[in-house]
Amino acid sequence: MRSSQLFTKTRKTIPADETARNAQLLIKAGYVHKMMAGVYAYMPLGKRVLDNIAAIIRDEMNAIGGQEVQMTALQPKELWEKTDRWDDKKVDNWFKTRLANGVELGVGLSHEEPVVDSLRPFVDSYRDLPLYVYQIQPKFRNELRAKSGLLRGREFIMKDMYSFARTQEQHMELYERVAAAYLRVFERLGIGESTYRTYADGGYFTEKFSDEFQTVSPIGEDTIYVDENKRIAINKEIYTDETLAKLGISKGDLVEKRSVEVGNIFPLESKYSDALDLYYTDETGEQQSIIMGCYGIGVSRLVGMIAEHFADEHGLVWPENIAPFRVYLIRLESNEQIIRTADALYENLQSAGIEVLYDDRDARPGEKFADADLLGIPHRVVVSAKTVEQGVFEHKLRTESAKSMRNMESLKNVLTTGA
Amino acid sequence: MRSSQLFTKTRKTIPADETARNAQLLIKAGYVHKMMAGVYAYMPLGKRVLDNIAAIIRDEMNAIGGQEVQMTALQPKELWEKTDRWDDKKVDNWFKTRLANGVELGVGLSHEEPVVDSLRPFVDSYRDLPLYVYQIQPKFRNELRAKSGLLRGREFIMKDMYSFARTQEQHMELYERVAAAYLRVFERLGIGESTYRTYADGGYFTEKFSDEFQTVSPIGEDTIYVDENKRIAINKEIYTDETLAKLGISKGDLVEKRSVEVGNIFPLESKYSDALDLYYTDETGEQQSIIMGCYGIGVSRLVGMIAEHFADEHGLVWPENIAPFRVYLIRLESNEQIIRTADALYENLQSAGIEVLYDDRDARPGEKFADADLLGIPHRVVVSAKTVEQGVFEHKLRTESAKSMRNMESLKNVLTTGA
Repeated sequence: MRSSQLFTKTRKTIPADETARNAQLLIKAGYVHKMMAGVYAYMPLGKRVLDNIAAIIRDEMNAIGGQEVQMTALQPKELWEKTDRWDDKKVDNWFKTRLANGVELGVGLSHEEPVVDSLRPFVDSYRDLPLYVYQIQPKFRNELRAKSGLLRGREFIMKDMYSFARTQEQHMELYERVAAAYLRVFERLGIGESTYRTYADGGYFTEKFSDEFQTVSPIGEDTIYVDENKRIAINKEIYTDETLAKLGISKGDLVEKRSVEVGNIFPLESKYSDALDLYYTDETGEQQSIIMGCYGIGVSRLVGMIAEHFADEHGLVWPENIAPFRVYLIRLESNEQIIRTADALYENLQSAGIEVLYDDRDARPGEKFADADLLGIPHRVVVSAKTVEQGVFEHKLRTESAKSMRNMESLKNVLTTGA
Repeated sequence: MRSSQLFTKTRKTIPADETARNAQLLIKAGYVHKMMAGVYAYMPLGKRVLDNIAAIIRDEMNAIGGQEVQMTALQPKELWEKTDRWDDKKVDNWFKTRLANGVELGVGLSHEEPVVDSLRPFVDSYRDLPLYVYQIQPKFRNELRAKSGLLRGREFIMKDMYSFARTQEQHMELYERVAAAYLRVFERLGIGESTYRTYADGGYFTEKFSDEFQTVSPIGEDTIYVDENKRIAINKEIYTDETLAKLGISKGDLVEKRSVEVGNIFPLESKYSDALDLYYTDETGEQQSIIMGCYGIGVSRLVGMIAEHFADEHGLVWPENIAPFRVYLIRLESNEQIIRTADALYENLQSAGIEVLYDDRDARPGEKFADADLLGIPHRVVVSAKTVEQGVFEHKLRTESAKSMRNMESLKNVLTTGA
């Protein structure tokens, strides 16, 4: 894409009420637009990052047999009363609305109830299980405060998966398969090394632990205790001698770290399936409860988290797999030969399937370099009088200060293989 | 995908309150789940059709320079007060909700206001125009009645595009470019031949006409007058001698038809841009109004419309480009050789990039054939004792009753080239 055809620009000023660094950066770079506190619209570059993250998650959920659906935001009250999650005294962050005839509706804050409801016509025998259902779509939560930018929104994009198993044993197989898929997701997102499967409180549903996926980061709001060798961690909430003994972890192996939660997985037992009358008949004709798990990844939260985690004093720094473009191509000066060379390189890379944001504007060099940094595209390539004269291109990684002069072959190499 | 791994099944019974034929069919075939009147969740097959339609629309919008964004459902009251579209007396189908602190919010029924608002940081010079912005996401409309299934939902998926031009002349260029793209979209969706660009009332915004895209169909609720030669039509609403004279169309060339609206495009003049203080500075330094257009296609409406339009007494009949799978592969009987042959064909077609729903269930032949028809997959392929013996496959189109025996090469030919 040519910069001249991208309607967003980098911004000097941002809304005065925006205090979260992730949102400040993303607004400054033109990735998002703030509609109100905790509610952000995605501009073209932000939409590309969001879609790239969603595509990786979708790919890994499909690989373990996840079946994609799309639930609705509008929710009937009756469904949530059955699980006792309608009353504002029980669940305090509903957005509620009304039909024209006065009937009260909810605006989906989660989707356990509708997913279970949607399975009722299809699941009744042991032959129908196990299964995974997932979706990637907006959630709405009426948070009292929303000051963390994209890390905790009132409207946000989430991947939520639900597993349905015949037995506890089968449930544990499904659960572990998702845990492994989650580690692959975070690896592909570029935060694999710093992300740990973390024991956390099972909460309302179970006496077991739940699992969080926590990324160690200076921007973290959580505290975890990491065992580097085992590559696991324990959330501070449950960091007691009793828990450590139960888990067979010794205090001496643990290091305290700050971290950000990037995913969580929960055993739900049969709370929702029982309440909504979803059972199965086993091989002997007996009716049995269905054991559920639920598995969340905040997609828009990851946009904010990754933005803030990797950013430096010059702006955003996207990991290769989720950057809106792989290459930021700058042409310096506007003489005919430079334009022709840069245009040809742009076409050449695009044809090779390498996505390029081509800064074809008549702007000052300093402005172009600053934008390249602020936007955080992984590779910067410059075409100038000097490079044209030498028949090469100047290449620089966003994460490094060293530049190198490369001919076309060498440039394509570094863009495709990283070498 | 194997049927045994698809959690949905065809259904014998559907909700008693469902009176719309499109929803009845889609529920029976397991494509959608009814949450409440006018609110449908997409099950895996329905989600695939929805995504296929969206992909075609996205492709054509990108081809004319559309930039994809994603607006939010939650909307601040202040924004809509500026265009006088907040008051329920002015716009009577809002869903409204409240923040925990009592502040009233809207749940997005359209997105002119937020799109214009999101452009304000980026558009101020003639150099920033023209541009197209579009999105594909849910809309919410508080319809008093919702009895048309997916044709008129309370929550539905829509593609809405907005154009921004310097002058009326430039606006008309953008407008006509979208009109041409719309015809390509409907062509690719399989309803090109029966879809007409149709003059309609300009409504609130303009003294000009707006344009609808109407598909001639027995299920239509609208009446249009079609000029087959010019491939245009006129909506009954504006079918007067005066209009005909204005448009230079003679009554004798027109035939009355029933039709369904599948898209519409509107000149918005500068109503929203002026009200929301979005102007540009021209070459001479003068501030100028921005001329907008808006362009809608109901994506989920198209799922329902195409379902009902093509269905026959046996069930759904999807056009090739949007079917959830290209091939419904049936294996009859379960002896080892048949299973091996069908498995190999399944792998072979999948490797060739042909998407197959493989009915690997141990079910009666009649049930499998009935499901193939109800699901509406374009190509049916059968592997049976007879075909294995002859070293061939039985092929049948959903739209035809004739079967043919084909070897692998011939089968692949018909699946890829249609020959």
